[in-house]
Amino acid sequence: MTDYQEALYEGYGQRFTIDRMLHEDHAGSRRLAIFENARMGRVMTLDGVVQNTEADEFIQHEMLSHIPILAHGLARRVLIIGGADGAILREVARHRDVEQITLVEADAAMLEACKTFLPERSRGAFNDARLNLRIDDAQHFLNTCGEMFDVIICAHIGRVAAHEEEGSLFQACRRCLNDGGILVARIGTPFMQLVQVQTAAKQMNGLFADWHFYQASVPTSCGGAMSFAWGACDPASRRLSLETLSQRFAGSGVVTRYYNPHVHLAAFALPQYVLQAIGKASNS
Amino acid sequence: MTDYQEALYEGYGQRFTIDRMLHEDHAGSRRLAIFENARMGRVMTLDGVVQNTEADEFIQHEMLSHIPILAHGLARRVLIIGGADGAILREVARHRDVEQITLVEADAAMLEACKTFLPERSRGAFNDARLNLRIDDAQHFLNTCGEMFDVIICAHIGRVAAHEEEGSLFQACRRCLNDGGILVARIGTPFMQLVQVQTAAKQMNGLFADWHFYQASVPTSCGGAMSFAWGACDPASRRLSLETLSQRFAGSGVVTRYYNPHVHLAAFALPQYVLQAIGKASNS
Repeated sequence: MTDYQEALYEGYGQRFTIDRMLHEDHAGSRRLAIFENARMGRVMTLDGVVQNTEADEFIQHEMLSHIPILAHGLARRVLIIGGADGAILREVARHRDVEQITLVEADAAMLEACKTFLPERSRGAFNDARLNLRIDDAQHFLNTCGEMFDVIICAHIGRVAAHEEEGSLFQACRRCLNDGGILVARIGTPFMQLVQVQTAAKQMNGLFADWHFYQASVPTSCGGAMSFAWGACDPASRRLSLETLSQRFAGSGVVTRYYNPHVHLAAFALPQYVLQAIGKASNS
Repeated sequence: MTDYQEALYEGYGQRFTIDRMLHEDHAGSRRLAIFENARMGRVMTLDGVVQNTEADEFIQHEMLSHIPILAHGLARRVLIIGGADGAILREVARHRDVEQITLVEADAAMLEACKTFLPERSRGAFNDARLNLRIDDAQHFLNTCGEMFDVIICAHIGRVAAHEEEGSLFQACRRCLNDGGILVARIGTPFMQLVQVQTAAKQMNGLFADWHFYQASVPTSCGGAMSFAWGACDPASRRLSLETLSQRFAGSGVVTRYYNPHVHLAAFALPQYVLQAIGKASNS
């Protein structure tokens, strides 16, 4: 048995025993690998960085899906950018009131590999009648689609846009949001990737009526809590009462393993060093 | 350069480059090591498990100290169990209203090693005039001290009591708490160590008027959010308003890098799978 050593940081990182290599695809410059680990289940890595694992993917995918949809309250049209494994799609599809789910993924080979080797991520969601699957570059899709969405979920900003292009991706998302719309995007761990969080803060500042970050601790996103960008057209979306969220959650019928309305509200409480880094005086 | 591979879990874990080994002490059955890592600073390991690192220790030590002291509001006598490196002591000592700080540590050699090789953890706090330092077994100390405390902080339950002895340690702490007293203890990561969390829940149930857990993501406590046990004699201690906590925090004059009153309240919001594991229907 060999070890997978994540190469994200110099001199520190996580390691997994590779119990069985299921798939390796080095197409062009990107390197996709899917392997089995006894503790974490099927692990998906891209360019030497763990994307998610079977054991803990529910955390990030529930938090990326249920927070914006329940905060919105009337989301009918949802756009997922990236998320080739279909796990966000699976969580979004749990919401019966969502009428259309568009998933834009640039990498068709990765989509196929995920369907074959990670079927437990999507659990049949690719067959959902509400799905509009588009093989396209995210920026190109947003610039040409002529559609508007209530919620946009970006699976991983770093996978979808190069650092210098993130600003225009945020702008393109903002243009495609209906009134009251919400954008969320996985950014990085503030403890290890504070610059990414600061960059996203600068890009959202002025673009959204309300912007902030929320957090969840994803075990195999090594290096502390993972932060998700939050950009909302209506500041009220982040200031809902526990009662309102509890009613919406109960009404949705969605069953979760991580998300609940207390966790929803609590996730927006950023530690002091993160607030300082993004130039905010408080979490209010 | 060699690597330190944490041996806590089979087939998954974190690794550090050892840039410089500073101290190794294999006294009896316990193995203490302190080494330098470029990313995380000075790393302290015990029996193959990372205890804390210079870069991220502020997170757990602020959350172990400021949460119970500010929730209590009138803490004058604080007991720290374990915490040989003096980092909890450092945080507790920031509170000017605390009149006496008792630190009980069984391992004198570890205390000396920490003073020598980890002086940035305690930052002079061992010289605080309010400190009563006792080299003693925690259970023996609690059974014989005849003293009462407002806040008891247990640095790491697993270091202080063997699994089967945790129950009597919780009971002994409860007996030494004044009216309105609060016990907190570092337990483990629910994602990887759910049984430890469940065991602590069973031990607190019936012993405290209010018990729960709170969480913080400590990057080098590998495997997701770290949970801390919370046992309080007064249920109101967990139900303070943001305004009350903000007033107390401002009044304390304490400056933090992680803690703030929003984070304080948010830390008690446990994910759905943790609630289910400890037999609670909600976070209320």
